[in-house]
Amino acid sequence: MSVEPLSIPSFDSLALDDADPVFAFHRGGKLEVAAAVPVRGRDELSLAYTPGVARVCTAIAERPELVHDYTWKSNTVAVVTDGTAVLGLGDIGPQAALPVMEGKALLFKRFGGVDAVPICLDCKDVDEIVETVVRLAPAFGGINLEDIAAPRCFEVEQRLRDRLDIPVFHDDQHGTAIVVLAALQNALDLTGRKFASTRVVVSGAGAAGVAVTAMLLASGVTDLVVTDRAGALHAGRTELPPVKRRLGHTTNPLGRSGSVADVLAGADVFIGLSGGTVPEEAVASMADEAIVFALANPTPEVHPRVANRHAAVVATGRSDFPNQINNVLAFPGVFRGALDVRARQVTEGMKLAAAQALANLVGDELTADHIIPSPFDAQVVPVVAAAVANAARREGVADR
Amino acid sequence: MSVEPLSIPSFDSLALDDADPVFAFHRGGKLEVAAAVPVRGRDELSLAYTPGVARVCTAIAERPELVHDYTWKSNTVAVVTDGTAVLGLGDIGPQAALPVMEGKALLFKRFGGVDAVPICLDCKDVDEIVETVVRLAPAFGGINLEDIAAPRCFEVEQRLRDRLDIPVFHDDQHGTAIVVLAALQNALDLTGRKFASTRVVVSGAGAAGVAVTAMLLASGVTDLVVTDRAGALHAGRTELPPVKRRLGHTTNPLGRSGSVADVLAGADVFIGLSGGTVPEEAVASMADEAIVFALANPTPEVHPRVANRHAAVVATGRSDFPNQINNVLAFPGVFRGALDVRARQVTEGMKLAAAQALANLVGDELTADHIIPSPFDAQVVPVVAAAVANAARREGVADR
Repeated sequence: MSVEPLSIPSFDSLALDDADPVFAFHRGGKLEVAAAVPVRGRDELSLAYTPGVARVCTAIAERPELVHDYTWKSNTVAVVTDGTAVLGLGDIGPQAALPVMEGKALLFKRFGGVDAVPICLDCKDVDEIVETVVRLAPAFGGINLEDIAAPRCFEVEQRLRDRLDIPVFHDDQHGTAIVVLAALQNALDLTGRKFASTRVVVSGAGAAGVAVTAMLLASGVTDLVVTDRAGALHAGRTELPPVKRRLGHTTNPLGRSGSVADVLAGADVFIGLSGGTVPEEAVASMADEAIVFALANPTPEVHPRVANRHAAVVATGRSDFPNQINNVLAFPGVFRGALDVRARQVTEGMKLAAAQALANLVGDELTADHIIPSPFDAQVVPVVAAAVANAARREGVADR
Repeated sequence: MSVEPLSIPSFDSLALDDADPVFAFHRGGKLEVAAAVPVRGRDELSLAYTPGVARVCTAIAERPELVHDYTWKSNTVAVVTDGTAVLGLGDIGPQAALPVMEGKALLFKRFGGVDAVPICLDCKDVDEIVETVVRLAPAFGGINLEDIAAPRCFEVEQRLRDRLDIPVFHDDQHGTAIVVLAALQNALDLTGRKFASTRVVVSGAGAAGVAVTAMLLASGVTDLVVTDRAGALHAGRTELPPVKRRLGHTTNPLGRSGSVADVLAGADVFIGLSGGTVPEEAVASMADEAIVFALANPTPEVHPRVANRHAAVVATGRSDFPNQINNVLAFPGVFRGALDVRARQVTEGMKLAAAQALANLVGDELTADHIIPSPFDAQVVPVVAAAVANAARREGVADR
């Protein structure tokens, strides 16, 4: 049986005619700043601005915590990028990254009721990114880092977490990891597996690969191999940069080596986060009842119809196949919950709680074609938000 | 006749009960980010975000000018402060400044249809402010500087103008100067004066005083004295910091010295931008048909009822007396016009055009109690915007 090609919109045909629905949709941008209060006449003008506003400023100067009550801070997140790892497009710069940041902000509002502002930075140095975000943080209740290239995304996030008392969350890492963990939990349940005895291959040692691996290890997986372009990471690969070298030591306890195809032989789970390709024979060589998450976007590492010939459960990042692993299932609820309780950070426990809540939401409807809820399931955000808020309180990082 | 005290809300009574209308009005903030496009289902999700958005990003990466067409950049302004000179409250810090920045953004939208985002910086060093604003500029179509203390506001603005190719406008300087110039033009017409033969005293050598003085000199005034707390600036005052020393040399050609009251004797025009007080006798000592702009907020330098006993035309910054000199008459139209033609800067000519348009708008309705339009006059923004846009094109700083 032949496999139909994936229908992916051409990236080459830059038809800028607004007859093209993508460009028509984007004309003028996707966001606006709106008034949350009316200014119909002089009375409201003198409440919103001078002289009335001076009293609110004075109150906040004397009691800084009031900034959460009388400004938009506690519902507002900066979506910050340096434009260096935008979707699969790479380093296209801060202005070309803006449509993605606007899209992200749009989804924050649409799904989480969170006000999000695109901030596209014209700098790539870690020190400069960190200092800039620290300086602009006062008006924001959270920082969502987006599309910043690995490995500097790790240091940027860690240093911002250390410096700021508001949630800092690199969505390409943790949003992906939360949704992957939720989907994998359900896929394991469906195929009668436990984390501890499941053999996993993660293809890709970038932002998402690192974060997914960390959450899987925290969930009890031990036999896990991460691959990069040169094959499996293991303790014997001495040419690696620091982040990958650490992965080579903290994963792959059996010291497997070789290509993705080599290490897939006999594996239970494949998680593709690389943009590479995996041949059908490699999928066929996996364990019975295999689980394949081919998440590269827009071109999965293996076509889902091919994967389905050999695997029990298949997921992709695309909306036109079952089981879409989409970050929009995580970040709106994570920030909604964190902002609701004025969490000072997003802890590992809050992320695990988000994944668990997301997995549980599928409940009795769990099948091989439905291991994860739809982004349009109205229960997703409130359930994830509640789990995150509860975890924040339990862990003592909530201010209310 | 006794003068009733001005009814000014107490700044001391920090009643945080939402029964207080100011705090009730501010609860939860005054702004939100809203969707400009719908995301009702998977089709719109794939236009707004992946995979569709990737084509817009690619287009902008290849043709950077398209960022104006397909993002919110060309209608969006950052309202940037360091929180060091907030209203009359001084250095209250970036978080306590946020209600003013939100108010400003609200007025940008209400009056100018401009999307404005509050950016409150946690740094006060000129280099740090400049670098931070340069780095965050890519997603914005303009920079409105606000409530940054003098004298560093001058250097911050000048360096940002040199570094960025979008309009940079310190409203405390130029917004005030535009409205003062417009009002003064009409007051001079009303009292049969010309700029060149009018004797002016400007009280206050801060951001507004410096900018108003520059515009008056550019309009032909020659006999102008600026005062600070120690009295008239003149070439003989050698203790002054650079900005004031320069004023001492570029103004006051007759070398007048003494207090504000001293130099007011015989003056035609008083422009108060200081927050100090002027005794009734000093106003009485001015020329016949004197013009008094007592603009300190919320407490004018001289009560308007007192000034009216001696002056032909009196204006304040307050909405509860005639002739309110309010920046909201300028900044929404200035940015609307600049953004409409994608101006790369706001030139002196654009500011003068804005003032002229504002003055002309009063037209046949010019009286001593109506020298400037109301902010709620629906003609203000379109007329100012058109004048600014035309000036930008005439001067060759417009990109369309």
